[in-house]
Amino acid sequence: MLNWKDEYNLGMLADFYEFTMANGYLEKNKEDIITYFDLYFRNVPDNGGFVILAGLEQLISYIENLKFSESDIEYFKSKNIFSEKFIDYLRDFKFEGDIWAMPEGSIAFPNEPLVTVRAPAVQAQLIETMALLCINHQTLIATKANRIVRAANGRAVMEFGARRAQGADAATLGARAAYVGGVIGSSNTLTDKIFNVPALGTMAHSWVMMFENEYEAFKAYAETFPDDTTLLVDTYNTLKEGVPNAIRVFNDVLKPLGKRPKGIRLDSGDIAYLSKQSRIMLDDAGYEDCKIVASSSLDEFKIKALINQGAKVDSFGVGERLITSKSSPVFGGVYKLVAIEKNNKIIPKIKISENVEKITTPGFKQIYRIYDNITKKAEADLVCLFDEEIDTTKPLEIFHPVHTWKRKVIENFSVKKLLLPIFKNGKLIYNPPTLDDITNYRKTELNSFWDEIKRFDYPHLYVVDLSLKLWNLKTDLLQNR
Amino acid sequence: MLNWKDEYNLGMLADFYEFTMANGYLEKNKEDIITYFDLYFRNVPDNGGFVILAGLEQLISYIENLKFSESDIEYFKSKNIFSEKFIDYLRDFKFEGDIWAMPEGSIAFPNEPLVTVRAPAVQAQLIETMALLCINHQTLIATKANRIVRAANGRAVMEFGARRAQGADAATLGARAAYVGGVIGSSNTLTDKIFNVPALGTMAHSWVMMFENEYEAFKAYAETFPDDTTLLVDTYNTLKEGVPNAIRVFNDVLKPLGKRPKGIRLDSGDIAYLSKQSRIMLDDAGYEDCKIVASSSLDEFKIKALINQGAKVDSFGVGERLITSKSSPVFGGVYKLVAIEKNNKIIPKIKISENVEKITTPGFKQIYRIYDNITKKAEADLVCLFDEEIDTTKPLEIFHPVHTWKRKVIENFSVKKLLLPIFKNGKLIYNPPTLDDITNYRKTELNSFWDEIKRFDYPHLYVVDLSLKLWNLKTDLLQNR
Repeated sequence: MLNWKDEYNLGMLADFYEFTMANGYLEKNKEDIITYFDLYFRNVPDNGGFVILAGLEQLISYIENLKFSESDIEYFKSKNIFSEKFIDYLRDFKFEGDIWAMPEGSIAFPNEPLVTVRAPAVQAQLIETMALLCINHQTLIATKANRIVRAANGRAVMEFGARRAQGADAATLGARAAYVGGVIGSSNTLTDKIFNVPALGTMAHSWVMMFENEYEAFKAYAETFPDDTTLLVDTYNTLKEGVPNAIRVFNDVLKPLGKRPKGIRLDSGDIAYLSKQSRIMLDDAGYEDCKIVASSSLDEFKIKALINQGAKVDSFGVGERLITSKSSPVFGGVYKLVAIEKNNKIIPKIKISENVEKITTPGFKQIYRIYDNITKKAEADLVCLFDEEIDTTKPLEIFHPVHTWKRKVIENFSVKKLLLPIFKNGKLIYNPPTLDDITNYRKTELNSFWDEIKRFDYPHLYVVDLSLKLWNLKTDLLQNR
Repeated sequence: MLNWKDEYNLGMLADFYEFTMANGYLEKNKEDIITYFDLYFRNVPDNGGFVILAGLEQLISYIENLKFSESDIEYFKSKNIFSEKFIDYLRDFKFEGDIWAMPEGSIAFPNEPLVTVRAPAVQAQLIETMALLCINHQTLIATKANRIVRAANGRAVMEFGARRAQGADAATLGARAAYVGGVIGSSNTLTDKIFNVPALGTMAHSWVMMFENEYEAFKAYAETFPDDTTLLVDTYNTLKEGVPNAIRVFNDVLKPLGKRPKGIRLDSGDIAYLSKQSRIMLDDAGYEDCKIVASSSLDEFKIKALINQGAKVDSFGVGERLITSKSSPVFGGVYKLVAIEKNNKIIPKIKISENVEKITTPGFKQIYRIYDNITKKAEADLVCLFDEEIDTTKPLEIFHPVHTWKRKVIENFSVKKLLLPIFKNGKLIYNPPTLDDITNYRKTELNSFWDEIKRFDYPHLYVVDLSLKLWNLKTDLLQNR
């Protein structure tokens, strides 16, 4: 299938069982039952303290473009297991439900709905796979990128992973998500063109090898890009050839033009040692302003180690370990039925499991984030039934949903609702922010949390409790099934 | 960017430095120098013994569609660092080079060129990122899928990971690669439609929860799909409710129709125990032919453990740990300049590194696989200069490229060239096989290797040597730089 993108309709990117179930709901006249599904996760990747939500814009884009072509219809017919009613239904398919979600850049915690879908059974079911895929992928990468950015402790981090990404979308949307997480730009040109994520990069080893020698290669580059000269100094021997050649070219080409070099890049060897030695050589030559960029299988752990060793690195190019979230490459979002409507009444639903962690929290829900009015820091999240209001004029007592004796009384606080309306009756009622707005929102959000939840090792467990009403509802359903 | 796919030209999915270097080559009139690049890898994921090549078809598709639109051109102009010459060059861009590659489904080893590109400098450079991305991603997943299939030891493996994939391409092309690796099908409907990878799947927990009770849910499903009834039995309590309800429905719905059930699916809990108990219950009820499918965070390690424990599982649904290659999520293919042409002579190039593993093997190369004429098994691969021929009528002495005293004399053998011509002067001269042909080729190829290289722990290291000519060339370049 050489032109495989010709038939590429994301509407068809759904687990086959979504279609068999849809067919079954239609057969049993259940297609119009209104259902509520929560998209949430159970564990933070890399044992971190929180995640950064991303991917909502692509989920919206998917919903807005969701329909089935004649060739999709033909495909289903060819299976000989789908009813006429189903085929007709698909032909006129349109998402008509409601969606609430946390905005991108939000800080989120396990067991909180990130997205809630209210829609006729078939519709809510058909969007399951892509809803999960969009949120799972980008939330994973935004969260990982932010870990790496935090490790770099103020130094710039650049995303360089396209060649090792798990497919083209992983490269392009991964770079987008990394920007949400805090990288300053990406090597992926397509992400710059589509999403305005600044494109970055200078030269590969092949450039150096294309010239008679390293000096000629550096000279040619500086002549071509005198305003943006960053030279890769490790093709032959970093300290004996690369850095001295770079300095010669700064002197021979840039100095006469009155230009300053931008940087050198170290891509192999012992970065701690090489960066210190290179720094001395550059400083001695009068290039104290020349930055040192490091790349080479970096991640948050290696970056922390480099900084601890006093490496003289000004910015980090991070590739495969960011774009695949190598040390923790799966974000385990799930999409679970939490309620149905019957005669305009919401009937909460629960999934039991011998694995306690897998028991769902039933009902149509909202999340309140509680802020201390003095410190302005987030103190806890309270998952409530959707129509519950919180009276901020009175002390609020919250309690742990399992160890219920763990209680906390909060006073002098404000609250913010975390789930915003995105779609109403299939119509988009949300104005997606720009990527820079999302990045700024992420910064503000992160500032509202104590540092202790942001550390890598044994982060402080942020409090996510259930309201008394919701807790009672869940307990009743568990006991009286 | 809600319709972000509108501007989605894979030609722009290239590291930004490919374009800055291209601009530089044009400035320095080096754009037409003929270059040779090898795409190869250094380490097998999961410390395995070999990889299964996949992704060539998507690389071909990318090359065939490679051009730049007016809006891409506008993008480059807006950067204010690219020359007019470069802009004009991009406007008329067409890949005019030659490409050789191993066919998909090939068994490959570290340091063997999987793809070799011969093209004018700019062209060879611009395709780097996507060439790597296509091969890196699908080879990773095909290799992982095959590990899981080998662990299942004859039982069927199904790919169920779309929702946890790193983007839509990762889901769709990942499922394609998994099929190359040996899964029997995928839950991803889009992959069936585009690539004819059989779509599989029946019901989710939400189906069960949509009905009054589990029995009603199973009954409705069996009535809708009497020829394909696989029931998910773990929504409430597998052994006390799920399996008994399934058996009741087999008796009540299928038996009167003269139909047999297809299976039950276990998706949580202790699969070893639950499968054994379920097997007894099904057998006692006269459903010895009803299969047991298991899913739930499976991979090759868990599947081996289940089989060792005597679990009664007939097939495995494998999700996130396959589609992300969780335990080893990066395939580290690189793309390195190995030669240039000057006055129609090939000048080999080498990249030195303090990291010995990172030193390249110079020159334009071919790989011969050597088969023993009696056992028909592959005995070694010999990387040669492209125009070297091997005389199979005489004994062949080969030697280890580092420990050169390790020598081996091969007699009574045949050889096969591993790199096939794909593009010639930009024209596709290869007829890509169907996916089923690729899968069959992979089977045949795997059969030609001893079991010892296929084991998971400390696999036998297959011999990959350099020809004497190539070894001399490399040694000379290393010593006389």
